[in-house]
Amino acid sequence: MCGLLDRINQPNDIKNIDAKDYRRLAWEIRRFLVRNVSRTGGHLASNLGVVELSMALHLCCELPYDQIVWDVGHQSYTHKILTGRKEEFGSLRQYGGLSGFPKRAESGCDVFNTGHSSTSISAAIGLAKARDIRGGVQKIFAVIGDGALSGGMAYEALNNAARLDSNLIIVLNDNQMSISRNVGGMAGYLGNIRTNTNYTGLKEDVEKVLKKMPWIGEALTGSIRGFKDVLKRIFIPGMLFEDMGIKFIGPIDGHDIKQMVSAFDAAANVKEAVLVHVCTKKGKGYPPAEKDPASFHGVAPFFVRDGTPRADAKDKETYTDVFSRTITALADRNTRLTAVSAAMPAGTGLVPFSEKYPGRFFDVGIAEEHAVTFAAGMAAGGLKPVVAIYSTFLQRAYDQILHDVCLCRLPVVFAVDRAGIVGSDGETHQGIFDIAFMMPMPGITILAPKNSWELKAMLNFSIEYNGPVAIRYPRGEAYTGLEEFKQPVEYGRGEWIARGHGIVLLAAGSMVKTAVEVYHIFKGRGINISVVNMRFLKPLDDILLEKALNGHSLAVTLEEGVVTGGFGQAVADWSNSRNTNAKVLCIGLPDKFLEHGSVSILKEKYGIDAKSIAERVLKAYEEEKGKA
Amino acid sequence: MCGLLDRINQPNDIKNIDAKDYRRLAWEIRRFLVRNVSRTGGHLASNLGVVELSMALHLCCELPYDQIVWDVGHQSYTHKILTGRKEEFGSLRQYGGLSGFPKRAESGCDVFNTGHSSTSISAAIGLAKARDIRGGVQKIFAVIGDGALSGGMAYEALNNAARLDSNLIIVLNDNQMSISRNVGGMAGYLGNIRTNTNYTGLKEDVEKVLKKMPWIGEALTGSIRGFKDVLKRIFIPGMLFEDMGIKFIGPIDGHDIKQMVSAFDAAANVKEAVLVHVCTKKGKGYPPAEKDPASFHGVAPFFVRDGTPRADAKDKETYTDVFSRTITALADRNTRLTAVSAAMPAGTGLVPFSEKYPGRFFDVGIAEEHAVTFAAGMAAGGLKPVVAIYSTFLQRAYDQILHDVCLCRLPVVFAVDRAGIVGSDGETHQGIFDIAFMMPMPGITILAPKNSWELKAMLNFSIEYNGPVAIRYPRGEAYTGLEEFKQPVEYGRGEWIARGHGIVLLAAGSMVKTAVEVYHIFKGRGINISVVNMRFLKPLDDILLEKALNGHSLAVTLEEGVVTGGFGQAVADWSNSRNTNAKVLCIGLPDKFLEHGSVSILKEKYGIDAKSIAERVLKAYEEEKGKA
Repeated sequence: MCGLLDRINQPNDIKNIDAKDYRRLAWEIRRFLVRNVSRTGGHLASNLGVVELSMALHLCCELPYDQIVWDVGHQSYTHKILTGRKEEFGSLRQYGGLSGFPKRAESGCDVFNTGHSSTSISAAIGLAKARDIRGGVQKIFAVIGDGALSGGMAYEALNNAARLDSNLIIVLNDNQMSISRNVGGMAGYLGNIRTNTNYTGLKEDVEKVLKKMPWIGEALTGSIRGFKDVLKRIFIPGMLFEDMGIKFIGPIDGHDIKQMVSAFDAAANVKEAVLVHVCTKKGKGYPPAEKDPASFHGVAPFFVRDGTPRADAKDKETYTDVFSRTITALADRNTRLTAVSAAMPAGTGLVPFSEKYPGRFFDVGIAEEHAVTFAAGMAAGGLKPVVAIYSTFLQRAYDQILHDVCLCRLPVVFAVDRAGIVGSDGETHQGIFDIAFMMPMPGITILAPKNSWELKAMLNFSIEYNGPVAIRYPRGEAYTGLEEFKQPVEYGRGEWIARGHGIVLLAAGSMVKTAVEVYHIFKGRGINISVVNMRFLKPLDDILLEKALNGHSLAVTLEEGVVTGGFGQAVADWSNSRNTNAKVLCIGLPDKFLEHGSVSILKEKYGIDAKSIAERVLKAYEEEKGKA
Repeated sequence: MCGLLDRINQPNDIKNIDAKDYRRLAWEIRRFLVRNVSRTGGHLASNLGVVELSMALHLCCELPYDQIVWDVGHQSYTHKILTGRKEEFGSLRQYGGLSGFPKRAESGCDVFNTGHSSTSISAAIGLAKARDIRGGVQKIFAVIGDGALSGGMAYEALNNAARLDSNLIIVLNDNQMSISRNVGGMAGYLGNIRTNTNYTGLKEDVEKVLKKMPWIGEALTGSIRGFKDVLKRIFIPGMLFEDMGIKFIGPIDGHDIKQMVSAFDAAANVKEAVLVHVCTKKGKGYPPAEKDPASFHGVAPFFVRDGTPRADAKDKETYTDVFSRTITALADRNTRLTAVSAAMPAGTGLVPFSEKYPGRFFDVGIAEEHAVTFAAGMAAGGLKPVVAIYSTFLQRAYDQILHDVCLCRLPVVFAVDRAGIVGSDGETHQGIFDIAFMMPMPGITILAPKNSWELKAMLNFSIEYNGPVAIRYPRGEAYTGLEEFKQPVEYGRGEWIARGHGIVLLAAGSMVKTAVEVYHIFKGRGINISVVNMRFLKPLDDILLEKALNGHSLAVTLEEGVVTGGFGQAVADWSNSRNTNAKVLCIGLPDKFLEHGSVSILKEKYGIDAKSIAERVLKAYEEEKGKA
C-alpha cells in the first residue's frame, strides 16, 4: 500500500523515485502526515502545503552537503520524512520524541534551528559566506513564508542578501489562498524570462519598456537609470533598494514539482541571491484543512474523517479566554483602551475585541518590535494600549520595552501570554525568560495572577495604572481554585494565603497553585507552613517580605521561569542586603533550554512540581534546623 | 550681531521672522552650533545638515500641539534652539545640563524620547492613532535618516504606515553627499505631480504608461493591477508591498526652506501616510565638517578655526584600540575568523580589519538583529565570527543572541564595547544592562577583562573556545595597571589579586581597578582585604567562590551594570544555595536609567567609585562583625 514511502528511508532516497511517481509519493506523504498528526497533534496545514516544495528541494539537493534553512520551521515535517525520520513521527512533539521544528541535534540535514520567525535569510547568508570563505560549492536555501517576511529582520537580511556576490536561493513560500487570475499572463511572461539563466535584470526590462513609450522615446534613454531609481523610491525609498539587486524568479506553482525543480536549478546558476516566488496552498489535499487552514495551523489530535477534535471540547476556560473576555469588557468602559497583536489575534484572544472595536484594534503582522514602539507612541499620545504577545516572542522586542516604553514610563500594558512551560513546541517556544529579562528594566511593574479571578483583577488594575505593566500568565486552563482569596489588587502588595511557621513559600503566579499543593503535603506531615501569593514580582513588596523573611527561618521563592536573573534572586538579594533571619532558597527552572514534552513531564523533570518542591524544601529546612 | 537668534526664545517664535531673513537665521544657528559644540563637544555634522529642515518643520507646526519625532535624536539641536532651550547649550551633554537627545522631561515639544535607531515611524504611527481616536487634528512628523531606514523595525513600521487612513508625514532625511545628476529631470517631474494634492498614486501612472505601450495596448488593461503587483514583486516580493500605499513627495532640497514648507503643507493635506524625501548635506556650512562629516558626527571640543581637537591627542590606548589591534592580528593566524559590524566599523575599531581582510569583514548597516543571526549562520557553517556592537545597541538583538546563537551553542564571539557607563550620551546609551540580559541565557560565557593585557588574552581565548562568548569592556582608556597579573585565561576560572582577611571583593572587569583602589583605602586603615578578578561572570568559578565565600565573612560583588539580574545576584544565590559562611553584598548600579554626565560624576553619584564602595563595605563589615 505505502510502496513509495517505504523506499524513503534516508536522505536523498527520493532521487530513486521515478518522476512519474512524484504525484503518488506526494499523496502518500500527505496521507502519512494527516494520519500521524491526527494522533499526535502538531502543525498540519502548513506542512500539507509544502509537500511538493519539500520534494523539489530534496530533488535539487545533495543532503546533508547542501543546506536548507526553514524559517520558523513548523513546516519541516516532509523534510523530516525525506531525511530518514519517518519512523519517529509516532512520537512527534512528545517528550523524548521527534521535535516539531528543525534541530541540528536531531539530524545533520537540519543545518539551523528555527522556531521564531524571520531568521532564515540572515542565517542562510551566514552559511553562504561560510561556504565561500571555506571554499565549498553547497547549494544553500532559505525557505520563508510570506507572513515571516513582515518581520523586520527579514528585510535587514534582504538588504544584505542583495550584496552577495555568490549564490543563495531564497524560496518565498507564498501560501495565500490563490494568485488572482488576472496576474497570469504577464506573470507567466516575466516568470519565463527570469527562469532563463540569461536573465538580465530589471534595468533592461525597464529600458525596453521605456524605449517603446511614445511620450518618452529614445530621447530619455540617458535618464533610464534615473527612472529606475525613481520607481524604486515610489515603492519604498531608502537604503534597502539603493543597492538592491536580488534576482527574482516566479511566481511558480508550488505544487508543480517539475516547474520548481527547473526554477531552483536555474536559480542555482546565478552568482547572486535569487528569490524564487513559490505559491502554495495551505492545507492542500486534506479538505477540512483546505477549507479552514487557520484552524489546522496547529492542531490537537483529531478524527481524520472530518477533522473534528478527538478530545471532548470541554470548554475549560483558559487564561487567554479570561484575558479575552476581560479586555473586551474594559474597552466598553474605557474609550482610550486599544489592543495590539503581532499576527496572533486568535492565539492571544483578541478576536472578540477586534470585532467589537475594529478602530481600536491593531494587528501589525509578525512585527513585535514595531508592535511595542507603536504602543509606546499611542501611550505618549494619551491612549492606554494593551500589547498581547506570547512570552517567547516578546523577546524580539526587548529593546523596545526597555528603551521606548520604560525609559519614559509610558503606560503600556503587556499581556504576556504563554509565560512558563508551553510543552510540545519545545525549546524555541518555552516562555521561561520573560521574568529574567524584565526584572532589570527600570520602572516596569511585573504582575502574575494566581488564578482566573486575579488575572481579571490585575487587568483592571493595570488599565488604571500610569506606567508600564507586564502581566504574565501561562498557557492552558485557568486555575479557578483559591476563589475565596479576593483581596483587591493594591500596588506593590502581595497576599498571604496561609500563615504557618518555619517555612514560607513566596510564590509567583502559576506557582501559587503549586505552593498550595506543597502546603498540603507538609500539612499531611504535620507541618504548618506559610504561603504567600506575591502578585507583584516587581516591585517587591517590602512590607510583606520584611514579615516573611524575619518570621521564618526558610523562605522559598517559586517561579515558572529561569532562576538566573529571576524574581527569586531579587528576593535573595533583598534579604541579604537587609540582614533578614531567613535563608532564601530560589526554586525555578534551571539554566538551560527546555526540550519539548508535556508540561507535566517537564515540570517534574525540572523539579517544579509540588512533590519535587516539597522534597527540596524539606531537605533545606532540615539543614537549617540542623544549623540552628 | 545675533539679532535674529535673539528673537527666538520660545516655541513658534520662528514664525515672527521674515521669510527673507531665513537664510540669515540659518547662518546664525549654524554659527551658534559650531561655537557651542566646539566648547562642549557633541553631535555636529548631522545638526548642521538639518538646520533648514528643522526651521521648515517649525514653520509648519504649532508646537507643542503638533508633534515631531526625531529618529535617533542626535540631530535635534536646532529643534532645541527653536523651542526655547538656546541658553542651555553651554551645558550640553554635561551633568545636570541639556541632553543631547530629545527628552519629554526637558520640553513639552519633545514628544518622544529617542536614542536608538529606527523607532520614529512606529512611535509616530502610535501618536497618529492616538490623535485619531481622541479626535485631534495634530500634524505628526517622523524625521528619519536614510541610515536608520536600514533597521528592520523601520520597515515593520512602513508596512503598517501604509494602512493608515489618516495623515502622518515621514520625512526621510537623506544626507548622502549628493543626488546623482541624471535623476534630476524625471525626479523633478514626479516630484511636481506628487506635491500636488491631486496626486493619484502609482496605479494610475502605471496604467497611463501601459496604455501607451504599443506592444501591450488596451487589450491588457484588465491586467494592469496584476502588472502593478508583478512590478512590486520585482522590487521586493512580500506582504510589505502587497498593501503598500505610502504617498511619496520628493526629492526636495533640504536646504530650501520654501520648497520644504510647501511640500510639508501639501503632505499634511493627504489623508494617508506621506513620505517626503528631503536631501540634506551633513556638516553643511562648516567647511571642516562638510569635508569630513564622519569625523564630525560626534566630536570632542575643537578649535573653530580648523576643527582640530582642543585637547592634546595623547593617543592613550582605548579598549577599542586593543580590540582592534588584537582581532586583526588573530585574523592573520585564523583564516576562519570573520568580523561583523552594524554600521559602526570606526566606533568598534574594525576599520583596520576591514582594510586588511575585506572579504572577511561585514558591515551590515544599522541592523543588529541581522548582524547576530548572520554571524550564527557563519558559525553554523564552520567560521568563527566576531560581532562587535556597543552594549546598548546589542539590546536590539536579545532574541537573536538567545534563540539563534545560544540555543545551538554556536561559537560566536560578541565584542561588547561601551559596556558600563558611557557618560555624555546619557540614558539611551549607557551600557548597563548587558550583564543582566545575558546572565540568564543558557550556554553563553561572559567575560570581562581587568586591563588591556587581559582583553587581548580573552580574545585569544574566545577565538579558540567552541561556544558563544561575550566579552564586555568599557568605553575609553584601557587600564594598564596590574600588569604583573598575567595568569593564562582558563575556562571558568578567576584570579586572586590580593589575599587578606574578613572581606573579599569579587570584581568584574572594569571594577577590578576600582577594587584595587578600595583595597588600598582599607590598607590605609590597617585592614588587609582580599581582591578577586572574576574574569568569568558566567559560568561562575565554583572553586574560587567556595574559597572566597567560606574564607571571609563578607563578600562584595562589584559590577559596572545594574544589580538587578546581574552577576552579583547570581553569586548571592550561589552562596545561599550552598550555605557558605559569607554574607554577600551586591554593589553595582541602581534600578534606574542613568542620565548624561561625565563617567566620574555618575560613578560617584551612583556609588560605584572607590570611596563610596569603601564606605559601604566598611559599614556592612562592621555590621557583620557586630552580629558575630
